[in-house]
Amino acid sequence: MRSHYCGDVNKSHVGEEVTLVGWVNRSRDLGGVIFLDLRDREGLIQVVYDPDLNDVFELASTLRGEFCVQVKGLVRARPDSQINKDMKTGEIEILGKDLTIINTAAPLPLSMDNHQNNSEEQRLKYRYLDLRRPEMAERLVFRSKITSAVRRFLDGNGFLDIETPILTKATPEGARDYLVPSRTYKGQFFALPQSPQLFKQLLMMSGFDRYYQIVKCFRDEDLRADRQPEFTQIDIETSFMTSDQVMAKTEEMVQSLFKELLSVDLGEFPRMTYEEAMRRFGSDKPDLRNPLELVDVADLLKDVDFKVFQGPATDPDGRVAVIRVPGGASLSRKQIDECTKYVGIYGAKGLAWMKVNDLDAGMEGVQSPVLKFLNEQVVSDLLQRTGAQSGDIILFGADKANVVAEAMGALRLKLGEDFNLVSDEWRPLWVVDFPMFEKIDGGYHAVHHPFTAPTGVTAEELEANPTEALSDAYDMVLNGCELGGGSVRIHNQEMQSAAFRVLGISDEEAQEKFGFLLEALRYGTPPHAGLAFGLDRLVMLMTGTQSIRDVMAFPKTTTAACPLTNAPGYANPVQLAELGVAVIEKEKAKDEPTT
Amino acid sequence: MRSHYCGDVNKSHVGEEVTLVGWVNRSRDLGGVIFLDLRDREGLIQVVYDPDLNDVFELASTLRGEFCVQVKGLVRARPDSQINKDMKTGEIEILGKDLTIINTAAPLPLSMDNHQNNSEEQRLKYRYLDLRRPEMAERLVFRSKITSAVRRFLDGNGFLDIETPILTKATPEGARDYLVPSRTYKGQFFALPQSPQLFKQLLMMSGFDRYYQIVKCFRDEDLRADRQPEFTQIDIETSFMTSDQVMAKTEEMVQSLFKELLSVDLGEFPRMTYEEAMRRFGSDKPDLRNPLELVDVADLLKDVDFKVFQGPATDPDGRVAVIRVPGGASLSRKQIDECTKYVGIYGAKGLAWMKVNDLDAGMEGVQSPVLKFLNEQVVSDLLQRTGAQSGDIILFGADKANVVAEAMGALRLKLGEDFNLVSDEWRPLWVVDFPMFEKIDGGYHAVHHPFTAPTGVTAEELEANPTEALSDAYDMVLNGCELGGGSVRIHNQEMQSAAFRVLGISDEEAQEKFGFLLEALRYGTPPHAGLAFGLDRLVMLMTGTQSIRDVMAFPKTTTAACPLTNAPGYANPVQLAELGVAVIEKEKAKDEPTT
Repeated sequence: MRSHYCGDVNKSHVGEEVTLVGWVNRSRDLGGVIFLDLRDREGLIQVVYDPDLNDVFELASTLRGEFCVQVKGLVRARPDSQINKDMKTGEIEILGKDLTIINTAAPLPLSMDNHQNNSEEQRLKYRYLDLRRPEMAERLVFRSKITSAVRRFLDGNGFLDIETPILTKATPEGARDYLVPSRTYKGQFFALPQSPQLFKQLLMMSGFDRYYQIVKCFRDEDLRADRQPEFTQIDIETSFMTSDQVMAKTEEMVQSLFKELLSVDLGEFPRMTYEEAMRRFGSDKPDLRNPLELVDVADLLKDVDFKVFQGPATDPDGRVAVIRVPGGASLSRKQIDECTKYVGIYGAKGLAWMKVNDLDAGMEGVQSPVLKFLNEQVVSDLLQRTGAQSGDIILFGADKANVVAEAMGALRLKLGEDFNLVSDEWRPLWVVDFPMFEKIDGGYHAVHHPFTAPTGVTAEELEANPTEALSDAYDMVLNGCELGGGSVRIHNQEMQSAAFRVLGISDEEAQEKFGFLLEALRYGTPPHAGLAFGLDRLVMLMTGTQSIRDVMAFPKTTTAACPLTNAPGYANPVQLAELGVAVIEKEKAKDEPTT
Repeated sequence: MRSHYCGDVNKSHVGEEVTLVGWVNRSRDLGGVIFLDLRDREGLIQVVYDPDLNDVFELASTLRGEFCVQVKGLVRARPDSQINKDMKTGEIEILGKDLTIINTAAPLPLSMDNHQNNSEEQRLKYRYLDLRRPEMAERLVFRSKITSAVRRFLDGNGFLDIETPILTKATPEGARDYLVPSRTYKGQFFALPQSPQLFKQLLMMSGFDRYYQIVKCFRDEDLRADRQPEFTQIDIETSFMTSDQVMAKTEEMVQSLFKELLSVDLGEFPRMTYEEAMRRFGSDKPDLRNPLELVDVADLLKDVDFKVFQGPATDPDGRVAVIRVPGGASLSRKQIDECTKYVGIYGAKGLAWMKVNDLDAGMEGVQSPVLKFLNEQVVSDLLQRTGAQSGDIILFGADKANVVAEAMGALRLKLGEDFNLVSDEWRPLWVVDFPMFEKIDGGYHAVHHPFTAPTGVTAEELEANPTEALSDAYDMVLNGCELGGGSVRIHNQEMQSAAFRVLGISDEEAQEKFGFLLEALRYGTPPHAGLAFGLDRLVMLMTGTQSIRDVMAFPKTTTAACPLTNAPGYANPVQLAELGVAVIEKEKAKDEPTT
């Protein structure tokens, strides 16, 4: 039905007759001539209908927005004065000769021009219209290019695309599983996978050596802007490769992706230990575009007569760290209060500050509510260690180490934005040497997951000293986002059992939940390591959007509903009976307001 | 850890030192020398440990099957007498210099050599061992090559890979949906998709023009050897393309697949109407490798004084058709009884037969229990029309047309096998011109699905005469398997509503179930058409296996369970309460026998 895509017609076609199909993006009658912007997947083109071609002109004058039409016409160069440099096809236009209305459109329930006026709910309900907007369509086209490039890279590197089950057993990734009642085994349930972790490890045990899959994963969590019930992972696993080799290969993949699709050279990814990342940036996914850093000052404050500082400075689990903000002395009291409130979200009980009004004026030159607790030496040491200049502000975090990291790490990001300090570049890095476990409420939790191998300890040492062990894990971070994370896996039964015990999983429970994994580890399991990238986040980053819903064709709302199809819905009672389950509690219908 | 894959070492490496990793496929001590077959994903290689290298020899003598090891050694040519032509690496061997046991293996629960001795249940329970067998691994590697080639073809033809939801609304594909309780909307359920049919149509309405996805689909049906609860489709949809264009493009895809992966030239696919397929082969997916055909003879038998023939021969819904089997006169009474029993499965009430012992002997030369009902003219006409030769048998089917087609179509396949008539070649074809609807138990059912467009009728004509309408649908058939099926879709609201009404779906019910589709059809929907291939079946066909479980990494049993992970399993009561559902009927545990 077409000879070209609209967006592909260019100056080389001048004088040719073309046939195009697409949608009426806009149609205007300017001085008795109709100017039609025709749109398809590849772009827009201007079609001109002159009243001289009488019958077609009549038909053209009936066109409204989003009619689906076929246009035949002659490509001609626009006069210089009418060239539109913002438009891919802006140098040419089509002199319309023929016109067929393929399908009309009723008045639209969405505004196509001012989509800001459309509510998120409306946009999802009429998703097929919302997706016609070029900026929406382009993101999905770009997503398709990303997956295509990823697959080409991995295929070319000997990785095998192998599918793992969607109907499977509950996995222990921490979030809530979606459940699927079994009809054959009434009263029992499948779970939708939170990741194919155990299956990809089993594939290594099967000898497949290099596996990948671009695969849907599921978590029944309360949603935030960047979360969806189903999301997509680029899932990778290898045998006989060290963490360095896995990092090198996946780094090469991401480099080639950015090169091919954005013409960006990411360069070699620096590495940073978890310890350094937490110390300097208060985060295990530091945004290196932001120049602000946390500076530890506990040693300077351990003797001051001020409990807020002195307590954490002398507590082995405490921390005192400051951020120096260049030019920050201009912050008003109100702005500082705002910062205090902000760190409060992360559990900080307050935010001491010190303005450096005049660096050369000694104690006279600094201004701070806590100045009375500090002597001249301490102030001088603080100024020196932070490299303070006149006009700066120094902000203090003093609390348990994790609270300081989280609160001051978040404050660092906020101040970076507020003071416009974040550079416009791509700053990738690897974060490595994570602890195996963290202690929360008296119990140990896996920082990565329970299958991650420790570095350089025996199973006995791991159990004896869980918090000291480091894991052979690695996170790829880009501009403050965790693009992917992975690790070398435990490939030995004793170590895996020890890790389970540290996590408070008894041998009996381990046997019940992971018996098949422990059994599989007995039969010549190869050393293996892998990584998983969050595809949605990667697309968000590469297309510069903040909402995960902008990079999925048919996302769900924050209450996990689909306004388009009206899913979820009520089930047929006969089918529920066949499944051996019953609804015992009904909630408000979707169209009633959620409160 | 390796310099080469085992299977990749060849004569060009002679004299080089290589490092290999893999599994002990077999280890034998022959006259004081250890011969080790080392296996990895790419193949097997022979490693020789000589007692001269004393310490390593000791270690090598401890190796058992499926130990995971690293081998260093020198590649040397085998003496001519020891060359193994059945082995990719049979011209060379490795003189082992160093050996590291990476991981030992406990005595194996499966026989790796005689897998026929392993039960299907055991094979699935220890799937990671079963998948180590080269013939299993090769099929999954081949599957990966198929998907890679399909993606390359479609990417290269401007198709966009777009993901559609897994958590969605019940779709009307006929089979039972898997349900997923919603936590946010208690009492409501998502359904897992039986296909992304409506979403891909919505993507065409969104303007994406060419879509594909290799995607999991789900059906909660009772399983057979070639069915699994989750299976994979190569799903394709296009806008502005006719059925001819879709067929041409997908035919090109399958041709290129066979060319690239099997070096097979499929040639141009012939087309056959549904009517012809049913008439000649009694099937809408005829296996053209089988030369037997159904021959209609109702006109010859409409006047005979034998109700069994005469009834169907004069019934407008009846049919009388015969199959002539060359050399079939050799069938014993017992074998004929077997055939009678066989057609009985398909509803046929009997199977008349006529042996042609001597073609030239007139009525004397034929033998048949029904001969008394036939006069000489009828017999002569029958012999002539079927082209019978001495030694043949003619088998009669007389019943309702659908029973004759099904029973005689099945018998044709059986006899083709029994008489070894099926040629060893690839015989693709397109079946086209399907009826839109079939009448079953007084109601109309869609032969494809309710979204298929009819050819050349208006909505009014469709409703007035449903059984006469043909659909613009097409099935790709290869060697008697339906590889894929598709159609032009309805892109107009009136036609879609008419189709729903024919199917007995009231306007109100249509609005409730498909309101979003009917609404979407109002806004400039483009003409669109697509197709879906069953990937699992394609892989089965290309790798020559009969079981769908042989082309999936982690399939389920015929009772939809996974003996490896022991899914499905019991759910946490707290989680069920959160979902607002309760188990009201428990069934036997999985390890109790199913009866």
